[in-house]
Amino acid sequence: MSLKQVAGIRLGTTCAGIKGTKKDDITLIELAHGSSCAAVFTQNAFRAAPVEIASAHLSQITPRYLLINSGNANAGTGKPGLLNAQQTCLSLSTLANCDARQVLPFSTGVIGEPLPVDKICSALPAAYAALSPQGWEAASKAIMTTDTRPKLASRNLNLNGTAITITGICKGAGMIEPNMATMLAYVATDAAVDASVLQVCLTQATGLSFNRISVDGDTSTNDACVLIASGAAGNAVIDDVSSQQCIAFTRALNEVCIELAQSIVRDGEGATKFITLEVVAARDEREASRVGKTVANSPLVKTAFFASDPNWGRILAAVGRAGLEGLDIAAVNIYLGEVCIVAAGCRAADYVEQDAQQVMDREDITVRIELGRGEACATVWTCDFSYDYVKINAEYRS
Amino acid sequence: MSLKQVAGIRLGTTCAGIKGTKKDDITLIELAHGSSCAAVFTQNAFRAAPVEIASAHLSQITPRYLLINSGNANAGTGKPGLLNAQQTCLSLSTLANCDARQVLPFSTGVIGEPLPVDKICSALPAAYAALSPQGWEAASKAIMTTDTRPKLASRNLNLNGTAITITGICKGAGMIEPNMATMLAYVATDAAVDASVLQVCLTQATGLSFNRISVDGDTSTNDACVLIASGAAGNAVIDDVSSQQCIAFTRALNEVCIELAQSIVRDGEGATKFITLEVVAARDEREASRVGKTVANSPLVKTAFFASDPNWGRILAAVGRAGLEGLDIAAVNIYLGEVCIVAAGCRAADYVEQDAQQVMDREDITVRIELGRGEACATVWTCDFSYDYVKINAEYRS
Repeated sequence: MSLKQVAGIRLGTTCAGIKGTKKDDITLIELAHGSSCAAVFTQNAFRAAPVEIASAHLSQITPRYLLINSGNANAGTGKPGLLNAQQTCLSLSTLANCDARQVLPFSTGVIGEPLPVDKICSALPAAYAALSPQGWEAASKAIMTTDTRPKLASRNLNLNGTAITITGICKGAGMIEPNMATMLAYVATDAAVDASVLQVCLTQATGLSFNRISVDGDTSTNDACVLIASGAAGNAVIDDVSSQQCIAFTRALNEVCIELAQSIVRDGEGATKFITLEVVAARDEREASRVGKTVANSPLVKTAFFASDPNWGRILAAVGRAGLEGLDIAAVNIYLGEVCIVAAGCRAADYVEQDAQQVMDREDITVRIELGRGEACATVWTCDFSYDYVKINAEYRS
Repeated sequence: MSLKQVAGIRLGTTCAGIKGTKKDDITLIELAHGSSCAAVFTQNAFRAAPVEIASAHLSQITPRYLLINSGNANAGTGKPGLLNAQQTCLSLSTLANCDARQVLPFSTGVIGEPLPVDKICSALPAAYAALSPQGWEAASKAIMTTDTRPKLASRNLNLNGTAITITGICKGAGMIEPNMATMLAYVATDAAVDASVLQVCLTQATGLSFNRISVDGDTSTNDACVLIASGAAGNAVIDDVSSQQCIAFTRALNEVCIELAQSIVRDGEGATKFITLEVVAARDEREASRVGKTVANSPLVKTAFFASDPNWGRILAAVGRAGLEGLDIAAVNIYLGEVCIVAAGCRAADYVEQDAQQVMDREDITVRIELGRGEACATVWTCDFSYDYVKINAEYRS
């Protein structure tokens, strides 16, 4: 795919040696003067030190730099962890001649180890010198941990004659059930967007993308998603969420975020299948999402997908334990691909296992769950549960 | 262990060929005239046909027989499933000369397949002929599915000079996060206990035992736990939950149920470790249990235990996502065995990984989570997540 640069945004990476390899582990993202910035952070009660610092800084002043390290999460590190995160911001601000609060720190990797602050600060000049509008691909690699491939997405759109670009990167493969945010995702546009509108757009986009995926149901201490609008495209500032411009912008933004979120699931630890759970005819979106997440996180459903086993009883049992009040099972239908497996709460009369087997043999499988109690719907994306998930997580220290 | 017979209770087993093997798959439990009986059933919205029938029968009349088949769950089978379950009850009632509603049916095994009702009815005379007070061990084997070993527990107690026995059996190894019930458990006593008191005792006991375990977070469609009191011991009827007799009875009953529940976890699919999660200083028992279950069901925590990896950051992250309102992480302490790993929300100052490693190398591990916000506590038991869990569930059709 061709990744589009975003005017007003430069990225630089370098290797600080945090992971003990020669791979880049430091990423710097520079926002042009006048950019606006929005972010959502993990809802985990144990917020990592950089999450605390980044959200505090963002509430005080518009950022100029995002400083991301992989290999160490700086989580569960208490007060020294906060001081370490602040130290890296201070070090970069001296280098870049800005306020230390204009730096937002992000970390991903092992929980509970002290942040190697000296290594990071020593590496900052190299990352700073490397800043370039072409830095997206290098950045998408430098933020990886157990990811097997970088994750990027781009869209172009036209706003009243102005060409606009939206480009994003993210990382994540395990400890994935983001709640109001994802592992780490950075999306930038050259559109001019008012900061408060930008926050609304981001919250909505994450609700439809990163908050709708699950690899293993575990929410990270470090999840964060940042959306930057540099304004370099020169469009009239988007300052009304109900304007045509904002609707067009949001549509493209949602596409970028959904593509990024899906790429996390496709790269889910040990994943061999990509599963789309469409839950429809729910009372509200919340219960639709809840049913989707319950099925997505069921180890029995996930291992059945791994085995390509059309074991629909496990899907039915997971729907049944999602805790929906007064669920009438006689109104529930379930489809595996195009095959109706459950009709009116029990096995479809014309069900033939061979048909379901053909669907299960695919790598990309859609399950449609009709709850028969309302108009709301939600789509959740997940992956299967394989030997390799166990292997990766028994061997990797996250 | 020496399993104690229960006066007034007879058990018989036989092979109906449901599983396609020569192993017994039919179990009959006979209650003496005058017995009282209590039960709790799955909270899964998709209740299997036998669960519907058993709970309806129990509400109408005191049962004389429990009829259990393994190999087929008779779940997701709609109206034909209900008729099939009723048919087995009718068949047994003709044989045993009782009301069909005096038979409670139970099924465990594959979901969604039609119950082989002819096979079962043909096998009933042999099971009936086999009824014997010595049938407990055979029954504990005949109810097994993916279980690798039978699960039994017994206690004696003395109630005002009368010797009382409580004996129970259960089955279950996967699809285990019972909610108000377990997979299948049958506990009997020769004590005389009023039926309404018996229900209170059972609800309390399951709350402290079967509802406190999780293998994989999946709640079955067929969970049921039955408690029978034959009264054959000749004690004065226990008809007051606050009496000394009831308290003594409850204590022994809880012990039997906890031992049975723990045996399910120890035989959890693919389990190599037995993990006790003690959550203390919670606001109420419900949130303590919630934290315990969240940690117990975290795939990342479970794979770390499988690897004997003292990866305490994963425990901390799971506590953080349990959704406790206003959790002050600075008040949280976590112990792995006797080793303090998290103090005041971050890594304990004197933590040495070697100490934690020694605990992780054990097969039997206790994690103590102090929430620092109240007086309530709850203990949850679980097991690790291994290659074999994936193997068993990728290969077995549950």
